[in-house]
Amino acid sequence: MTKSLLLLPGDGIGPEVIGEVKRLLAVLALDIAVEEALFGGAAIDATGLPITDETVARALASDAALMGAVGGPKWAGQAYDKRPEAGLLRLRSEMGVYANLRPARCFAALADASSLKREFVEGLDILFVRELVGGVYFGTPRGIEDIGGGERRGVNTQVYTSSEIRRVARTAFELARGRSNRVCSAEKSNVMEAGLLWKEEVTALHKAEYADVELSHMLADNMAMQLVKNPKQFDVIVTDNLFGDILSDEAAMLTGSLGMLPSAAIGEAGKPGLYEPIHGSAPDIAGQGLANPCAAILSFAMALRFSLGDAAAADRVEAAVDKALTGGARTRDIGGTLSTQEMGAAIIAAL
Amino acid sequence: MTKSLLLLPGDGIGPEVIGEVKRLLAVLALDIAVEEALFGGAAIDATGLPITDETVARALASDAALMGAVGGPKWAGQAYDKRPEAGLLRLRSEMGVYANLRPARCFAALADASSLKREFVEGLDILFVRELVGGVYFGTPRGIEDIGGGERRGVNTQVYTSSEIRRVARTAFELARGRSNRVCSAEKSNVMEAGLLWKEEVTALHKAEYADVELSHMLADNMAMQLVKNPKQFDVIVTDNLFGDILSDEAAMLTGSLGMLPSAAIGEAGKPGLYEPIHGSAPDIAGQGLANPCAAILSFAMALRFSLGDAAAADRVEAAVDKALTGGARTRDIGGTLSTQEMGAAIIAAL
Ligand SMILES: CC(C)[C@H](C(=O)O)[C@@H](O)C(=O)O
Ligand SMILES: CC(C)[C@H](C(=O)O)[C@@H](O)C(=O)O
Repeated sequence: MTKSLLLLPGDGIGPEVIGEVKRLLAVLALDIAVEEALFGGAAIDATGLPITDETVARALASDAALMGAVGGPKWAGQAYDKRPEAGLLRLRSEMGVYANLRPARCFAALADASSLKREFVEGLDILFVRELVGGVYFGTPRGIEDIGGGERRGVNTQVYTSSEIRRVARTAFELARGRSNRVCSAEKSNVMEAGLLWKEEVTALHKAEYADVELSHMLADNMAMQLVKNPKQFDVIVTDNLFGDILSDEAAMLTGSLGMLPSAAIGEAGKPGLYEPIHGSAPDIAGQGLANPCAAILSFAMALRFSLGDAAAADRVEAAVDKALTGGARTRDIGGTLSTQEMGAAIIAAL
Repeated sequence: MTKSLLLLPGDGIGPEVIGEVKRLLAVLALDIAVEEALFGGAAIDATGLPITDETVARALASDAALMGAVGGPKWAGQAYDKRPEAGLLRLRSEMGVYANLRPARCFAALADASSLKREFVEGLDILFVRELVGGVYFGTPRGIEDIGGGERRGVNTQVYTSSEIRRVARTAFELARGRSNRVCSAEKSNVMEAGLLWKEEVTALHKAEYADVELSHMLADNMAMQLVKNPKQFDVIVTDNLFGDILSDEAAMLTGSLGMLPSAAIGEAGKPGLYEPIHGSAPDIAGQGLANPCAAILSFAMALRFSLGDAAAADRVEAAVDKALTGGARTRDIGGTLSTQEMGAAIIAAL
C-alpha cells in the first residue's frame, strides 16, 4: 500500500536540507506519495499562522511528516501564541508524538571534530528518549500577569500523570532491548515532586514488565556533569520534555557531529511520526548552500524505519551516508568544502 | 568588630573538608567567632529534622554560614519534606540568598584533567549567577495527587516576579563590571512565559542602568551546547534556579577541576551569606580521607571576601591554594595521592 510523507521544509536552512531529501526520494523511487506544506515562519508569512488547521490535518492523515527547521530573527516580534515555535508545539501535541528519539552518535570519521578528547567520544552512541508532548512545555496555568506596583509575574506549570510517564518509559525500555539493554532515567526528584513521580512510575513499570533491562536513575544536574565526564557510560536515557531538550543538546554537541544528527518523534503504534534534523534553522548560513543535509537525510531514514515500513531502504540510506563520509565527503561544518547539493550528490552516488 | 561564622559540616565528605577549614582558621587566627551546628542527614539522625529552627536562627544571626555537603543513601527513605535537601532549601530560602555565585574556573595545573581538549578549557573562567530562592524549587502549587483510576499527577510551578528577576540580574551586572563586562542570560523564552518575562526584565534593567555592560541572551538548550563547543565565549552567566543548577554543573565538569570549585550564595547587602563547595556529599569516598578540601577552603575564601569583610585574608587563602597546586600537591580526584589532611597541610604550609 502506498505510504504518504508530508514534507515541512520550514525556515532558514530547512528548505535546503529538505531539498536534498527530495532528490534522494526521486532516486530511490519508493512507493511513497510525497506532499509538501508551509510551516513556521514561512507559514506565518503566507497565512499569519505558524501552522494552519489544514496542515495539521494533512500531517495527521499522512504516515510521516518530515520537517526541516522553524524560526529565525525575522519572526522575533510575533505574538507569543503565533510565533514559529508555537506551530511546532501544536503539531507535536496534535500528532501525539510523545516519544522523541534523539540519537547522540559520534561518527567515526568525525571524532576529531569534538571539543572532547577522542577517547571520550569515539564510538559514542547514546539514544535519548525525551517526553515530547507534556511537562512544562504544555502545562497550565501559564502566562504573564500584572500584579500591581509595576510588577509582573511569569508562570509555567510542570505536570505529568502516571500514564504520560509510563508510555514514554515503555518506549525507552523497548528500544533498550534492541541495544545494550540499559536505561538511565533523569529527573530532579530531590527538589521536584513531578520528578519524584517520574522516578516512582519508571521504577514501577520496570519492576512489573522490564526487569530484564538494567535501570538506573540520575539527577539531571549530575547527568549534565556525567555526560561531560564519561559520556560512554550511557546507552538509552529517558527523561522529561525540558531536561530532554537541554541534556540531549549537550550530548549532541559532545559528538562533534551536530550537523549529522537526526531525530524521530513517535506516538501510539500505527499513528504518524514526526521527523526532524536537530540542528535548527541556522539563519546565519541560510540560503548559501552551506548546510549539511546529512541530519535531514538520516531523519528521513528514521521515517522509513519507524513510520514508512521500509527498514531495508532505511538501511540503504544510512549506509550511503556512512560511505559518503568515509569516502571523505564533508560540508563545511564538519571540516570540508562541499556545498549542500554536492553533499547530497555524494550520498546519492554512494547508494 | 568580631565577625561570626557558622560551620555546617553536614554529611558524607562534608565533615572531612570542613575539618581542613577549621585547621586553616586556627592558623590564620582572624577575629572570627566560629560556631558549628548539625545539618542534613546528621541533623536528621539527631533531631528527626534536616535543620532545626535554632540552627536557622543561628545562621541568620551569623555573618556567614559555611556548609560541607548534605544527603546520602542513608536518608533516601525520608519523608519528602524531611529529606536532607529540604533542610538546604529551607536554609537558602530563610537566609534570602537569592544570588548563587558559581565560578567555573579551570586551574592551569589541572587543565589536562578535563575530558575536553586543553585548548578549549585552559584559562576558562566563567561566573554563573544562579537565582537560588525562587522558580520551580519553591513555586506552588506543588505535590503529587491521586486522580483516580490508578493514576497520579505530579505538579511543580515555575514562577518568577519582576523584582526577583531584577535583583539577581543586578548582582550579575555588578559582578560583570569587575570582570570582562559581559553578561549572558539564559532561559527558554521560546517555550515558557516565565522565561519570556525573565528575558524582558533583564533587558529592561540593562537598558535602564547597565548599558555599559555587554548583554546577550541565549536559549538554555543552546547554552548547553555552546558550553561544550566553546566554553571560553562566556564571562558572567545569569539564569534561573533550575537552569542554573544544570548548566553550572555542566560547566563545572568542563574545567576538570570539580573538587576545586567553591560557591557563594548572597542576598541583600549586610545579610549573611551561605557558602558551599559544589562537589556534594560523595558518600562513596566519605570517611576515607580521600576528599579534596580545596573547594571547601576556597568557599571559605569567598566567605571572607563577601561576608566577613577580609578581602586580604581571602587573597592569602586563594594564593596558598594556587601555590600548593603549582607545587604539585594533589588529592586523588586531581591525579595525586595526598589525603584530605595532607592537602590541607600543604595549603597551610603555602600560606
Ligand atoms: C524550537 C524549540 C521549541 C524546540 C524545543 O524546545 O523543543 C527545540 O529546541 C527542540 O529541541 O526541538
Ligand atoms: C542538593 C540539591 C538540592 C542542590 C540543588 O538542586 O540546588 C544541588 O544540586 C546544588 O546545586 O546545590
